[in-house]
Amino acid sequence: MSQTQPQRKLYLEDLSVGDTFSSRHYEMTTERVISFAGEFDPQPFHVDPEAAKQSFFSGLAASGWHTSAVIMRLFAESVPLADGIIGAGCNVEWLSIVRPGDTLHVISTIKNITPSKSKPDRGIVIVENLAINQDGAICQRNTATLVVFRRVDS
Amino acid sequence: MSQTQPQRKLYLEDLSVGDTFSSRHYEMTTERVISFAGEFDPQPFHVDPEAAKQSFFSGLAASGWHTSAVIMRLFAESVPLADGIIGAGCNVEWLSIVRPGDTLHVISTIKNITPSKSKPDRGIVIVENLAINQDGAICQRNTATLVVFRRVDS
Repeated sequence: MSQTQPQRKLYLEDLSVGDTFSSRHYEMTTERVISFAGEFDPQPFHVDPEAAKQSFFSGLAASGWHTSAVIMRLFAESVPLADGIIGAGCNVEWLSIVRPGDTLHVISTIKNITPSKSKPDRGIVIVENLAINQDGAICQRNTATLVVFRRVDS
Repeated sequence: MSQTQPQRKLYLEDLSVGDTFSSRHYEMTTERVISFAGEFDPQPFHVDPEAAKQSFFSGLAASGWHTSAVIMRLFAESVPLADGIIGAGCNVEWLSIVRPGDTLHVISTIKNITPSKSKPDRGIVIVENLAINQDGAICQRNTATLVVFRRVDS
């Protein structure tokens, strides 16, 4: 299954390894890159365009945690789990710089599904989320471990 | 070395495995929990106090990505690396629910230091950040992989 913006709510039994989901596109505006970093990651290369030129990033870069938060937004929209996205953990890799003005979208792929042995109403699902910019570069890969519930028989 | 809010800027040679750093305390206000989630993680258990009561979390819970962003803020303040905190990746574990009104602080511990063989001006440092609430519960453990530079001889 490969789909964009499914309308229905998804349960464990609706997912299969290899399923992919594409999100909408999302612009990382200069204003929000700077204001997010000002609150959560106020380092010169995230908040000061002039100072950023002399930094490791050779120019203003979005905080990696801003990109992670945007992935969450896009992923939650394109993979609408019926009981919500409940994360136990996530492995994050920042692979390319996200610049102000970049437009990102997320490709989510179901990598593994393990039904719970002790709790038959749920399973553990591993999802890989790739945040991809307008040039096709993968800016972030995050691999999330989620608790996903089965449909309740009525 | 164990310290709170060091004033000087830190280089690779200033760090040792086992060093710990304590951050200031930070309140997760109800208003900001809801507004952060409204932008990045708008699921009922993060944005709707009434709907949250019936959810997996049995009440309003902060987005895990909000907690990650707050850890970044506190960690950057208490471990002031001279060239900034440059992350290659991070493994995040959400261990306890963060509730509106909780007050968090972060304990950062240097777990591993590997000087680069190919680039003598830098090394890879593994840091464990624990976000701890007012009751002593560990809400999030994140283990970050950072690029840290040596002092440049003048």
